[in-house]
Amino acid sequence: MTGIFGPLKSVGVLTTDKGLMEFFFKVKEPTEVLELLSGFGPSGEEKRPLEDALGRVLSRDLVAPENLPPFARSTVDGYAVRAKDTFGAGESLPALLEVCGEVLMGEAPMVEVSQGQAVKISTGGMIPKGADAVSMLEYCQLLDEQALEVSRAVSPLENVIQPGDDFRKGAVVLMKGQGLRTQDLGSLAGLGLGEVPVFKRPRVALISTGDEIVDITQRPGPGQVRDINRYTLGAFCRRNGAEPLYLGLCPDRFDPLKDMVQEGLARADTVWISGGSSVGTRDLTLGVLETLPGFELLVHGISISPGKPTIIGRAGPKPLVGLPGHVASAMVVAEVFLMPLLWRLSGHKQGTGPGQSVAEAVLNRNIESASGRVDYVRVRLFEAKEGLVADPVFGKSGLISTLVEADGLVAIEMNTEGLYKGQKVKVMRFNDGKGGLS
Amino acid sequence: MTGIFGPLKSVGVLTTDKGLMEFFFKVKEPTEVLELLSGFGPSGEEKRPLEDALGRVLSRDLVAPENLPPFARSTVDGYAVRAKDTFGAGESLPALLEVCGEVLMGEAPMVEVSQGQAVKISTGGMIPKGADAVSMLEYCQLLDEQALEVSRAVSPLENVIQPGDDFRKGAVVLMKGQGLRTQDLGSLAGLGLGEVPVFKRPRVALISTGDEIVDITQRPGPGQVRDINRYTLGAFCRRNGAEPLYLGLCPDRFDPLKDMVQEGLARADTVWISGGSSVGTRDLTLGVLETLPGFELLVHGISISPGKPTIIGRAGPKPLVGLPGHVASAMVVAEVFLMPLLWRLSGHKQGTGPGQSVAEAVLNRNIESASGRVDYVRVRLFEAKEGLVADPVFGKSGLISTLVEADGLVAIEMNTEGLYKGQKVKVMRFNDGKGGLS
Repeated sequence: MTGIFGPLKSVGVLTTDKGLMEFFFKVKEPTEVLELLSGFGPSGEEKRPLEDALGRVLSRDLVAPENLPPFARSTVDGYAVRAKDTFGAGESLPALLEVCGEVLMGEAPMVEVSQGQAVKISTGGMIPKGADAVSMLEYCQLLDEQALEVSRAVSPLENVIQPGDDFRKGAVVLMKGQGLRTQDLGSLAGLGLGEVPVFKRPRVALISTGDEIVDITQRPGPGQVRDINRYTLGAFCRRNGAEPLYLGLCPDRFDPLKDMVQEGLARADTVWISGGSSVGTRDLTLGVLETLPGFELLVHGISISPGKPTIIGRAGPKPLVGLPGHVASAMVVAEVFLMPLLWRLSGHKQGTGPGQSVAEAVLNRNIESASGRVDYVRVRLFEAKEGLVADPVFGKSGLISTLVEADGLVAIEMNTEGLYKGQKVKVMRFNDGKGGLS
Repeated sequence: MTGIFGPLKSVGVLTTDKGLMEFFFKVKEPTEVLELLSGFGPSGEEKRPLEDALGRVLSRDLVAPENLPPFARSTVDGYAVRAKDTFGAGESLPALLEVCGEVLMGEAPMVEVSQGQAVKISTGGMIPKGADAVSMLEYCQLLDEQALEVSRAVSPLENVIQPGDDFRKGAVVLMKGQGLRTQDLGSLAGLGLGEVPVFKRPRVALISTGDEIVDITQRPGPGQVRDINRYTLGAFCRRNGAEPLYLGLCPDRFDPLKDMVQEGLARADTVWISGGSSVGTRDLTLGVLETLPGFELLVHGISISPGKPTIIGRAGPKPLVGLPGHVASAMVVAEVFLMPLLWRLSGHKQGTGPGQSVAEAVLNRNIESASGRVDYVRVRLFEAKEGLVADPVFGKSGLISTLVEADGLVAIEMNTEGLYKGQKVKVMRFNDGKGGLS
């Protein structure tokens, strides 16, 4: 397999026809990869209390078990009236009504409204029988304790919310595959649904490989570097609704890696192995994956830069991913491909995953690009008088500082030789860490 | 104070000149409110482990304690060489070098590279002494175990990351007030900074008032409704990096409300009281706040719709907020004003808070609006061939279903009578619940 990322002359190491076929057919374009990833789905469902359901994805349609609101309510402070009694009323000729009581909050009204009568009511109060509208306080003037002048006509149902105006009993309130937002939780609270059926959060087993990698608590010796991917990929999982399960550092050897991958498959819904930008470790990762029962290789290399040496396969319903060891490459692959994968594993309905927020911006200089691959260019964003401006961050792609300086990525598509200064581009923003994820 | 949200004729109930002055000066425009809110800040700092720092805000500048990377590394698989030895090399006239060893990952090279020599190296390997560049594997051909042909020249430092290329010792890596993103955590991991100084998360005491409100576990009787704001405001806090502290339901009575507000001030950094859209409860909330030692009223009413009857004050460094009871109004106020407030309390540096993501869209119909206030209109968003389209959600503003159907808010500014079909508008997106907040 060595030859896959090298020129054709290394193809010689592919010893079988099957290997050769794989060579030609497993290097995928980004759209093909996304299509393959859309075949994965959530692993199961569970019930969560409402307090704990923000961002979770519904595993069933939710139906209103009752009307919301359950009774007719006033939307203003004023007097509940029969609209007909106010018809024709105006500043110069107010309607004169008799005040026959008051609606107390949280109680059924004790009085009914008959012709010529009015009942005092507050915002949210229950409309008494007989009344069909509410005159706002500012158009009402008490002459004495009982006599009320109304200086503006109201139409039937004016300033009234009817039972079921929010949600009618039996109506679908929220649909399977929907991520729960603040207001969605509010509607469920209003309906008394204190527990909701949601898909299980995907659990992601993370393995960092590489003989040169040491834990961040250790002082690296010569030739050693600290384990960065554990933290970037762990945080990436959390901000996309998944639960990282860090299995540990793995040396570049077959048996320990195989043990860890098997542990990951047993304990998690997907296994991500980072490391292996060098030929030997790429081969090692693939070698281990290929010994798994029922393993199917889906992607061996993606025609992108950075991030080309990415491996994706499946063992039954569980995706396995081999990521480049370079943190910047791994992060680009994560943003572009693993985010949609996590949407699928979380149960978000097709095409409505959360996604990066995409901003339109004007490029402030030319960027060259090789055709035949999609280039993901890091850009800074800033506001200028011409609008949002995208300023490419240059620097070697292996440097994490280029990502720290960047606000997002711009894709230069396959058959494009570059982008021009002044061109409008779509920027996939890095919008994490900006809200506060707990 | 009753008159504040009514017409001038109710001003008669303001019995003092001071009251009258407040009437005229405390109803604020949105920009004034945002200006006032920018005066609040975080309550303190703490140290957090890196695994737990996503989205947290740095309370100090962080400086690189060492170079990253600590040594020169190869960015490719190939052979470490002296660039000079390859000058002039090409397909037709390759340079011939002697392979004198291999760099093992995670170890200091055992060999040096002298003139005419090459050392095998993998991506991430430590550049051996004497070498200043790496020839990529695909331009190298082994003739036998020692003789190597290099068919392309490399320039000095080609395919090499130098010590400190990512971060130089002593350089500021990340600045105070910055929210920590995935890649930021990665850079800190790389530098061995396993614990970071961050501002404390703001703790928000939530109180739901109203005699008509019952807990969602209860079946509401006639005239009663369930407590929605607890869930919407609680989730709102969490998705904006704050910790909600739910104090409970409070009847519309002075003493219990005062007790709860005092408890909130003792235990939290800010107190939010929801409820009180009706005149009586608004007065009650303000009455309680005014008895707090050192209380200063900042805002009594905002010239917006919905959400006008909002009260904001301070007790020392702690903001106190009285929100309308209508969940939809409360949510608009939260999105527009309390999100920036939470940025301040979280320590985000001025002007760089996380914010809603703002999308540009084309309005698909006319919307009327009263001038003299800012209207926040709920809109659905969908993609069409003309780009993103904003479709207003109509319906009474008190209905939570209008927010459930909406994807964001469009502001119709103060002195505008409306917006026109086909006009470009900025949409403050509701982007929560879409990523997965834990």
